Amino acid sequence: MEKNTRTEHDLLGDREVPNNVYWGVHTLRAVENYAISGQPIGAIPALIRALALVKQAAAKTNRKLGLLDPQRAEAIEAACVDIQHGRLHDQFVVDVIQGGAGTSTNMNANEVIANLALEKLGWPKGHYSALHPLNDVNMSQSTNDVYPTALKLALVFAIDSLLEAMEGLRAAFAAKAEEFSDVLKIGRTQLQDAVPMTLGQEFSTYAVMMHEDIDRLREAIALIREVNLGATAIGTGINTDIRYAKLATETLSELSGVALVPAHNLIEATQDTGAFVQLSGVLKRVACKLSKVCNDLRLLSSGPQAGFNEINLPERAAGSSIMPGKVNPVIPEVVNQIAFEVIGNDMTITMASEAGQLQLNAFEPIIAHSLFKSIEHLTAGCRTLTDNCVTGITANRDMLAERVRVSAGLATALNPHIGYENATWAAREALRTGRSVAELVLERGLMAQDMLDTVLRADVLTAPRAV
Amino acid sequence: MEKNTRTEHDLLGDREVPNNVYWGVHTLRAVENYAISGQPIGAIPALIRALALVKQAAAKTNRKLGLLDPQRAEAIEAACVDIQHGRLHDQFVVDVIQGGAGTSTNMNANEVIANLALEKLGWPKGHYSALHPLNDVNMSQSTNDVYPTALKLALVFAIDSLLEAMEGLRAAFAAKAEEFSDVLKIGRTQLQDAVPMTLGQEFSTYAVMMHEDIDRLREAIALIREVNLGATAIGTGINTDIRYAKLATETLSELSGVALVPAHNLIEATQDTGAFVQLSGVLKRVACKLSKVCNDLRLLSSGPQAGFNEINLPERAAGSSIMPGKVNPVIPEVVNQIAFEVIGNDMTITMASEAGQLQLNAFEPIIAHSLFKSIEHLTAGCRTLTDNCVTGITANRDMLAERVRVSAGLATALNPHIGYENATWAAREALRTGRSVAELVLERGLMAQDMLDTVLRADVLTAPRAV
Amino acid sequence: MEKNTRTEHDLLGDREVPNNVYWGVHTLRAVENYAISGQPIGAIPALIRALALVKQAAAKTNRKLGLLDPQRAEAIEAACVDIQHGRLHDQFVVDVIQGGAGTSTNMNANEVIANLALEKLGWPKGHYSALHPLNDVNMSQSTNDVYPTALKLALVFAIDSLLEAMEGLRAAFAAKAEEFSDVLKIGRTQLQDAVPMTLGQEFSTYAVMMHEDIDRLREAIALIREVNLGATAIGTGINTDIRYAKLATETLSELSGVALVPAHNLIEATQDTGAFVQLSGVLKRVACKLSKVCNDLRLLSSGPQAGFNEINLPERAAGSSIMPGKVNPVIPEVVNQIAFEVIGNDMTITMASEAGQLQLNAFEPIIAHSLFKSIEHLTAGCRTLTDNCVTGITANRDMLAERVRVSAGLATALNPHIGYENATWAAREALRTGRSVAELVLERGLMAQDMLDTVLRADVLTAPRAV
Amino acid sequence: MEKNTRTEHDLLGDREVPNNVYWGVHTLRAVENYAISGQPIGAIPALIRALALVKQAAAKTNRKLGLLDPQRAEAIEAACVDIQHGRLHDQFVVDVIQGGAGTSTNMNANEVIANLALEKLGWPKGHYSALHPLNDVNMSQSTNDVYPTALKLALVFAIDSLLEAMEGLRAAFAAKAEEFSDVLKIGRTQLQDAVPMTLGQEFSTYAVMMHEDIDRLREAIALIREVNLGATAIGTGINTDIRYAKLATETLSELSGVALVPAHNLIEATQDTGAFVQLSGVLKRVACKLSKVCNDLRLLSSGPQAGFNEINLPERAAGSSIMPGKVNPVIPEVVNQIAFEVIGNDMTITMASEAGQLQLNAFEPIIAHSLFKSIEHLTAGCRTLTDNCVTGITANRDMLAERVRVSAGLATALNPHIGYENATWAAREALRTGRSVAELVLERGLMAQDMLDTVLRADVLTAPRAV
Repeated sequence: MEKNTRTEHDLLGDREVPNNVYWGVHTLRAVENYAISGQPIGAIPALIRALALVKQAAAKTNRKLGLLDPQRAEAIEAACVDIQHGRLHDQFVVDVIQGGAGTSTNMNANEVIANLALEKLGWPKGHYSALHPLNDVNMSQSTNDVYPTALKLALVFAIDSLLEAMEGLRAAFAAKAEEFSDVLKIGRTQLQDAVPMTLGQEFSTYAVMMHEDIDRLREAIALIREVNLGATAIGTGINTDIRYAKLATETLSELSGVALVPAHNLIEATQDTGAFVQLSGVLKRVACKLSKVCNDLRLLSSGPQAGFNEINLPERAAGSSIMPGKVNPVIPEVVNQIAFEVIGNDMTITMASEAGQLQLNAFEPIIAHSLFKSIEHLTAGCRTLTDNCVTGITANRDMLAERVRVSAGLATALNPHIGYENATWAAREALRTGRSVAELVLERGLMAQDMLDTVLRADVLTAPRAV
Repeated sequence: MEKNTRTEHDLLGDREVPNNVYWGVHTLRAVENYAISGQPIGAIPALIRALALVKQAAAKTNRKLGLLDPQRAEAIEAACVDIQHGRLHDQFVVDVIQGGAGTSTNMNANEVIANLALEKLGWPKGHYSALHPLNDVNMSQSTNDVYPTALKLALVFAIDSLLEAMEGLRAAFAAKAEEFSDVLKIGRTQLQDAVPMTLGQEFSTYAVMMHEDIDRLREAIALIREVNLGATAIGTGINTDIRYAKLATETLSELSGVALVPAHNLIEATQDTGAFVQLSGVLKRVACKLSKVCNDLRLLSSGPQAGFNEINLPERAAGSSIMPGKVNPVIPEVVNQIAFEVIGNDMTITMASEAGQLQLNAFEPIIAHSLFKSIEHLTAGCRTLTDNCVTGITANRDMLAERVRVSAGLATALNPHIGYENATWAAREALRTGRSVAELVLERGLMAQDMLDTVLRADVLTAPRAV
Repeated sequence: MEKNTRTEHDLLGDREVPNNVYWGVHTLRAVENYAISGQPIGAIPALIRALALVKQAAAKTNRKLGLLDPQRAEAIEAACVDIQHGRLHDQFVVDVIQGGAGTSTNMNANEVIANLALEKLGWPKGHYSALHPLNDVNMSQSTNDVYPTALKLALVFAIDSLLEAMEGLRAAFAAKAEEFSDVLKIGRTQLQDAVPMTLGQEFSTYAVMMHEDIDRLREAIALIREVNLGATAIGTGINTDIRYAKLATETLSELSGVALVPAHNLIEATQDTGAFVQLSGVLKRVACKLSKVCNDLRLLSSGPQAGFNEINLPERAAGSSIMPGKVNPVIPEVVNQIAFEVIGNDMTITMASEAGQLQLNAFEPIIAHSLFKSIEHLTAGCRTLTDNCVTGITANRDMLAERVRVSAGLATALNPHIGYENATWAAREALRTGRSVAELVLERGLMAQDMLDTVLRADVLTAPRAV
Repeated sequence: MEKNTRTEHDLLGDREVPNNVYWGVHTLRAVENYAISGQPIGAIPALIRALALVKQAAAKTNRKLGLLDPQRAEAIEAACVDIQHGRLHDQFVVDVIQGGAGTSTNMNANEVIANLALEKLGWPKGHYSALHPLNDVNMSQSTNDVYPTALKLALVFAIDSLLEAMEGLRAAFAAKAEEFSDVLKIGRTQLQDAVPMTLGQEFSTYAVMMHEDIDRLREAIALIREVNLGATAIGTGINTDIRYAKLATETLSELSGVALVPAHNLIEATQDTGAFVQLSGVLKRVACKLSKVCNDLRLLSSGPQAGFNEINLPERAAGSSIMPGKVNPVIPEVVNQIAFEVIGNDMTITMASEAGQLQLNAFEPIIAHSLFKSIEHLTAGCRTLTDNCVTGITANRDMLAERVRVSAGLATALNPHIGYENATWAAREALRTGRSVAELVLERGLMAQDMLDTVLRADVLTAPRAV
C-alpha cells in the first residue's frame, strides 16, 4: 500500500503532510494554530494574485542579479503566473485572522509556489533539495517586506473595483439629477421646512459627493503605492544585494501594471501602517456619505401615506407577511449596514495600527482582513444601490408641486419685495389657515400677480438673484 | 522686603512655590508637565470631595491602628472635612489630562491637605517636618489604591445625579404616555406605514427605555463600589498593616454613606479597569437610547407642512435669521450630540483600558476625565430634554385621527374578517384612490357598519384579540 | 423533457425556482438583492437551530389554540426538528448582511420549512395550497418578533460555547498560578521596576479576570433571555390570540431548554436593541482584558536576550525565514487581533442600534452578524490561547530570582526597618553599583542578617505585614 | 433708581438682558437651553477670530455691492477688527455643545458685533433700529454658510499651531537620530530579538513618521480651505446677490491671509461634512503614530533593572510616595492618553457626520468642539513631548554594545559566509551558553578574525550589502 503523505520538517520537528496538497509543514502549523474565522486567505483573490506577482518579481530580480539560477527562477516564475491566472487558490488555506505578522501567509505562498515549481521541473512535491520554499522562492525576502508589499498591491486591485462601482453610482445619481431638474420641492434643514429647491439639485448633491469621494480614494491610493520591497527583516535590508530593492520594485511595477514607488526610509516603511489607517479613514468617509444618502432616500420615500412620500424606490421584495402590500426600502437599508460595518472596521484597523511595537507591526493580518472586507462590501453596496434602487427612482411630481405652492417657506423669497414684517405675517397666516402665501399676498394687495409669478419661478427661487 | 515664596524640595531638587498657595513642589512639577486641556481637576467637585473622604478615612484608620498620632490625624481629618464642604477646590490645579496614573492628583491632594492641616495646627505652609504630605497624609497609601478608590466613589456621586435626571425624563415620558393614551396613530416600521397604535403607547415606550436604563446603571454601580483600598503599590499591600485594608474601607463607607466593598484580589483590582469599561458601556447604551428617542422626536415633529407633523415640540428659540417663523428641534439636537460624544468617550476609555500593562494601568486619568464628561453631559442632556422639550410636547390629534381613518394599513386588521385577498384589494385600492379602507369595504358590502366600528376601535386595533 | 424549475409568485410577479431547492421566491429575491459578503446565514448553525425552534414552538402553540390543524402542525414541527438536527442548513442561503430587518431570513426559514413539511406530507415542493410558508409556517408571527427571538436564543447557544472556552482559559491560568506560586519576581508599574510579587500572583490575576468576565457575561445573558414573541408587526400583538405570546414563549423555553422571559412591554421590546448593545459592551470588556493579558504575555516573554525574558511561551512555528532560530509569540498575537476585531464590531453594533427608528430597528442583521463574529472568534481565541500557549508556559526561575536579589525595589520593604532616608540611599547605591540592597545594608550594618532574611522572605515581601 | 437691564424681543416674546453685556436675547435663549459642558465658545479664540473675520468680510462685501450703507458697514467692520484683536471674547458665552447647527453661535456673534458697533456709533446697546444684528450684521448670510466657513478658517489657524509643534517634535527626533547614529543595538520584531540596527536609525524612523504626518495634515488643510460662503439657507444662495459669494470669499481670503476656495456646488457644500471627517481621520493617524512612538519610548526605557533599559528619559517628577527613587515615563504617558482621546473624538465626529439629514448637518457644533479639542491637545502633547522628554533622552551605550556583542541575532549576518546550517548552530549555541556568536564561530574556525571584524561592522550589519 502506498503512503499518501509526505514527511516535512521545521524547527519544531517532523510532520506528515497529505501528498495531494501543495502547501507544507509551515502552513500545517498555521492551520492548527489559527482555527479562528474559517475564512482562508484564498478567499481574497486579489491578495493571492498580488503575492504571486511579488514572488515572480523577486525571482526575476534574483535571476538578473545572478543570485538564482535560471532553471529554478523560471520554474518559480511560471508557477507564479499560473497562480495569477487563478490556479491553486484553494491551496491558500491559512485563516485570514492569524498571528505572526503575515509570516504564515508568506510561508503558505512559498510552499505552494515551490511545490508547483517542483512539479514543473518534474520533481515530486516536498523535494525541496531541488527547489526550496525559503532558500529559493523566498530569496532576498522577508515576510516583513513581502507581505505588506503584496497587501498594498492587492488593495490597489480591490480599490479599482470599488472606484468603478462608485463611478456607476455617481452616474446614476447624475442621471436622476438631470431627470428631476425641473421638479420643484421644499428643501429642509434640521428636518423642518426651509426654502424651495429642485429635486434635481438634491440628487445632483449625491452625484457630487460620490465624485469627491472618488477623488479622495484616488489620493489614498497614491500612499498605498509606496512599498518597502527589499527591506527584509527590519528595514535595514540585511542580506540583500544593494541593487535588489530598486530593481525588484521596478520589476513588480512592470509585471503588475501598477506604478509602485520604493519608500525613502525602509526602516520606517517596515514598521509604519499609516497608509492603511489613512486609507481606512477615507473608506470611513465614503461609508458616512453613503449612509447619509441612504438615510435621505429612506426619509424621502417614507410613507406612503404617513411620511414624506416625495420619491418612490423600486419595489424589490415583499416587505411583510402580516401587512398586505407593504414594501420597504431594503436596498438603502443594506447599504446603511455596510457603512456601519466599515466604520467598525476602521476602529479595528486603528487599534491594530496603534499597537505596533518597535520595528514591526505584528497585527497587519487583521488590518488586511478588515480593509478587504470594507472595500469588497462597499463595492457590493454601491452596485446593489445603483442597479436595484437609484436607477429606478421616480418622483411624486404633483405632490411636490402642491407642497411648494402652499409652502409657508415661500415667504423667505418675498422678503426683498414686501419686507420682513409682511413676510412674517404671510408665513404665519399660511401655516394657520392652510392657504398659500401667494394667495394671501395677492389678496392683501402686497404684490401684483405678474411680479409674484416672476419671483416664484423655479429658477428664481432656487438660485442667487441676478443684479 | 518679605519673600513671597517658600522653598520646597523633591528628588529633582529645590523649587520656589508661591506662599499663598496650598499646593507644593509635586503639584508644581505636574502643572509644568501637563499644560494640556486647561481644565483643572478642581473643576470636578465630586472627585475632590471623594479624594478628601479617602484621605480622611486613611487618617482615621491610621490613628486607630496607632500609626499616626491623634494631633496630626485630627488636623488632617479636619482639613479633609473642610475640602468636602467645598473649601480650596481652586487649589486642585493639576490638569485633568495628566501622565503618571493619577500620581499628580494624589500629590496635589496630599499637599493641599497637609498645608491646610498645618494651618490648623498653627504652622506656616511648607513646614512639613510638623506634618508631612507623604509620611502623614499619604500614610499606608499609594496612588495606585487611593486614586482608583476616590475615582470610584466620585463616580457613584456623579451617577446619583444622572439617575435623578433620568428618572425625571422617565416620568415626563410616562406623563405624556398617559396624556396621549387615547390618540390613535399609524405606527411605522422601516419608515413605512405599518399598523395602528396610540401615541400614548409610543411615548410609553420611551418611559420603559429610560426605566430599563436606570436599572442597568444601578447594576453598573455595584461593580464600581468594589475598591482596592490598602493595595498600595501593586496590590500586595506592601508596607500596610494587615488590618488596614478592611478597616479603611469600612471607615470610608461610613464617612461617605456609600457601601463600598473590598476587592477579593487586590493585585487584580489594582491593575483592572474592567468596571470602568463596563460602566462606560452602559453609558453608551443610555446614549444610544437617548439618541434614538431624540431622532424619533425630530422625525415626528418634522414639517410642519412637508413632514410627519404628528407632534409639536415647545419653541425654544428663533431657528433662522433668513427664514421668517422657522423653529427647529434644538433640544433633541443637543442631546443627539451629547450621545455622539459619549460614544466617542467610550472608545477612548476602551483604548485606555486595553493599553494597561502588567501591574498597573497608567492611563486612568483619561478614563476618569472621559467618564465624568459622559456622566455630566448626559445629566445635563436629560435635564434640558425633560424641562425644555418633553413636558411641553403637544399632539396634532385631528391630523393623526384623519391619517388613521384613511390608512391602507387598517387592512391588516380586517384580515381575520374579510380574508387576505379582500384585505389586499382594499389596501391597494385605498392607496390608489385616497379613499378609506372602511369606506371601500362598506361600499362593497364586505362588512357591516357595526362590525367595522367594533374592529376599528382603538383598543381592538392596538392589542391582541380577546378569545 | 421534464422542467427542472417550479413557478412561484410574490407581489412583484412570477419567478422560476430550481426544483431541487427548498427555498422559494422570497429567498430568491433576497439572494439577488444582497450579494454582499458571500457568507450565507446557514453558516451560523446556532441561528438556524434557533429559527427552527421558534417555528416549532409557534406551530405547537397554534395547534393548541386551535388555529392550525394537527396534520399541518405536525408536519411543520417534524421539519423543524430535522433542521435542528442539522438537516438542510445549506438551504439557508440569504447573505448574513441583508436589508429588511431580518425579513429575508424569516422568509428563507418559512420557505424551507414549508417545503420540507410538504415533502413529509407527500406533496411536491411549491404546493403551497396544501401548506403555506406564510399562512401556516408563519402563523401568529411577524419577522419583527420571530427574528429577534431566534437571534437571542442563538446568542445564548453561542455564548455557552464561549463561557466554556473562557472557563478553560481561567483554569489554565489558575493552574499556572499554583505552579508558579513560589517564584518570586519584580512587579512593575508604568513599565518601571516596582516591588516584589510572585509569578503565581501575576498569573492568578489573569485567572481572576477571566472569572469576573464569566460572571459579567452570565449577567448579560439574563437580558438576552427576554424576548418579544407574540409582538407581531410593531409590538401591539395585532392579529394574535391574547393567549399566544405567553404560551408560545413557554413552549419555546421547554423545547430549547433555555428559560426565556416574555418582555413586559412588547412595543418597547420590538424596537429596542439595548440588550445587544449591552452584550456587545461586555464582549468588548472581555476583549480588552484578553488583549491586556496577551500584551503582558508578549512582554514577559520578550527577548530572549534583549527583553524581559521572564517566561517562555511554547514554540508553535518557525518565526522567520531569514533569522535562524527565531520564534514569535504568535498565539497571543492572534488573540490581540481578535480583540481589536471585537472592539470594532462593538462600534458597528452601537451605530446600528442608534440608527433604529420609531417602531423597529431595521439594522438587526448587521447587529446579529457582528455579535456572532465576536462570540465565535473570542471562543476560538480563548481555545487556542489555552491549548497552544498558556498550558505550556514555563518560567525562567533562576533569572527571576537573581533579579529580585539585586533589585533596588527591595528598599521599599526596608522602609519600616531602616527608615526612608537609609532606604533611599540603599536604592540609589544599588542602581549605581549593581550590588544588592541586602548586601549594602549588611555591609553598612543597618540590619542584621537574620532580620534581613526574615524581611526578604517571599511571603513577607508579597503581602501586608502581620501585626 | 436706574434700570440695569434692557428689554429685547424675539419670536418667543420679550426678555430682560443685563445692560452691561454685549450679547442679546438670542444668546440668552441659548444659554438657557444649553447648560451642558460649562465651556463657552469664547474659550476657542481661533473660532471667535474667524467669526469676526467672516462678519467683516460680509460687511465689506455688502458695502461694495451697495447693500449696506458705509456708516453701518464701517462700524461693523471696526467692531470685527476689535474682536479679532482679542476684545470681548468673554461675551461669547454660548456653550460649545449646543443644538441648532451653529445658529446660537452665529446669533451670539451678530449680537456682540451689533452692540459693539452701536457703541462706536454713539448708541446705547440694544438700539437695533440704528444697526440690527440680523438685518445688518447678518446681511446676505445664514448660519448655514457663516458657521462652517468660520469653523474651517479657525481650523486652519489651529492646525498652523499643530504643524509648528509637530515640526518641533520632528526636529527633536532628527537631532537624536544624528546623536545616536553610531550606537549599535538589537532591533526587534514582535518583541523578539531580531537583527542589529543603530539607535540613530530607530530615532530617524520617528522623525520620518512626523514628517509624513505633517505632509498628510497639509493635504487635509487643502480640503478645509473650500468654503460655502454665500450659500445661505440650503445652498441655493436665496436672497443673495449673484456677485456676493465670489466677492465675499475673495475678501475673506484677503482679510485672513488664508487662500479660501469657493465650493463648486454650494448645495452639496452646505450639507457635506466630509472634509471634517477626512481631517479627523488624519488627526487620528497622527494620534496613532504618536501613541506608537510613546509606547516605544516607554518600552525602550523600561526597567531600569528588570526591563529593556536602552535609553533614559529625562526625570520630570517623583514617581511614587511609597517607592524611594522611582521615576516614571509620565510625558509619553500623557501623550498616549491624548491619542486615545483623539481617536474617541474621531468616532464622535464620524457619528455626527453620518447623522446629517437632507440639506444640512445639524450636528456641526459637536464636530467643531471635537476637532478643536483634538488639535489643541495634540499641539500641547507634541510640545511637552519635545521639550520635556525627547530633547533630554540619553542612551545606555555600553549596555547596548554588549547586547549586540553577545546577540544570537548576529548569526543572520553570517548566513552568506558560513551557510544557514552553521549559522543555526551558532545562534542556538549562543543562546544556550551565553557566549557570543563571533566567539563560537572563531573557536570552531568557521571564519577568520579579520573577516568577522568586517562583517560585524555597524555599517555592514545595518544596510544592504554592496556588490
